[in-house]
Amino acid sequence: MLTLYHSPNSRSTRIITLLTALDVMDQIDIRLTDIPRQDGSGGRDPNNPHPEGKVPFLVTEDGETIRETNAIMLYLCDRFPSDFAPKVGAPGRATMLSWMAWYGNVLEPVFVLNVAEISHPVLTSTFRGLPEAITALAAGLEGRDYLLGARYSVVDLLVASPFLWFPQALPDVPVIKDWVARCGAQPAIAQTAAYEAEAQKSLTEMA
Amino acid sequence: MLTLYHSPNSRSTRIITLLTALDVMDQIDIRLTDIPRQDGSGGRDPNNPHPEGKVPFLVTEDGETIRETNAIMLYLCDRFPSDFAPKVGAPGRATMLSWMAWYGNVLEPVFVLNVAEISHPVLTSTFRGLPEAITALAAGLEGRDYLLGARYSVVDLLVASPFLWFPQALPDVPVIKDWVARCGAQPAIAQTAAYEAEAQKSLTEMA
Repeated sequence: MLTLYHSPNSRSTRIITLLTALDVMDQIDIRLTDIPRQDGSGGRDPNNPHPEGKVPFLVTEDGETIRETNAIMLYLCDRFPSDFAPKVGAPGRATMLSWMAWYGNVLEPVFVLNVAEISHPVLTSTFRGLPEAITALAAGLEGRDYLLGARYSVVDLLVASPFLWFPQALPDVPVIKDWVARCGAQPAIAQTAAYEAEAQKSLTEMA
Repeated sequence: MLTLYHSPNSRSTRIITLLTALDVMDQIDIRLTDIPRQDGSGGRDPNNPHPEGKVPFLVTEDGETIRETNAIMLYLCDRFPSDFAPKVGAPGRATMLSWMAWYGNVLEPVFVLNVAEISHPVLTSTFRGLPEAITALAAGLEGRDYLLGARYSVVDLLVASPFLWFPQALPDVPVIKDWVARCGAQPAIAQTAAYEAEAQKSLTEMA
């Protein structure tokens, strides 16, 4: 059985949403773990094997370990094939890989640099900025409801997540706002919120 | 046929190395394209369909597009199965996905922030720093010659690339230095250098 190290209402919450959407929550051993939070609460859990004490962290039956949300998502989608993600060789696979890497390589760095109000020519030439990221996203949504077409997929789950987490960062671009609203209205998102409330209670009781 | 937009001696050089290692250079339509360079030379090529004029950029027969080096590598390794990358379900696949995402999500940002001499608490809490990245890399190499074990793979090609590109950034950690030397000595690296010299000549003649 796979083991997931998870902390409620954190970056790993998106993995809970994915497992819910894939309907495989019962096929994962989920270990609740504490992490240091931006507000100074929480702390590193020595039982979490992630080398930097972060979440999510996935461990396979054979002891292979996966860090990074986008990598864990790719692994889980291939491990539990479904309509939620195109398989190797299927239409949409190339587009899926592109967006999932872009999320981690570009959107998250420019989002964080924007929050921290940091700019520098080397950063701009490497990552470009948030305006270019917003433009890319809007172009990807032009003429379709979701990034891979008509259906909500793992790509939307990942790429919409920062805008659902920080609604104040949502750009005033209708095609993006409407898409984020559609993503936020997915049943798996509400189910995740219910799961996380219980998980937070369990974690607090464990402490 | 797949189409690759490529500029010699750039980030897309690593895709040439991968195509060489997979022995599929004849199965790709490679379009040489100009890009703006850090030293001010070069310029954006209007024929390059990448939304920001960057390379590499891969276009499939069906018109799907892939940006981001790690995504293009994953796509090519699945498209042309070989011993150079574990297939879905094979041992090493989880580890491969983890390193390839880590490269883009962590190593490249901390490398660039380090070059630009930028530090900020939000950046540190998100990406950690170069020391943590070096520690993670050294741990991954402990007791093995390459990141997936005994053989050079796509993971080594990608993760070693910044250290081969900027040798002055190579940390004074023997397990990493020895590994980078092994990676740099691969036949595909020398074959790529020869290809790139010719490609640069062609691009200059085209201008």
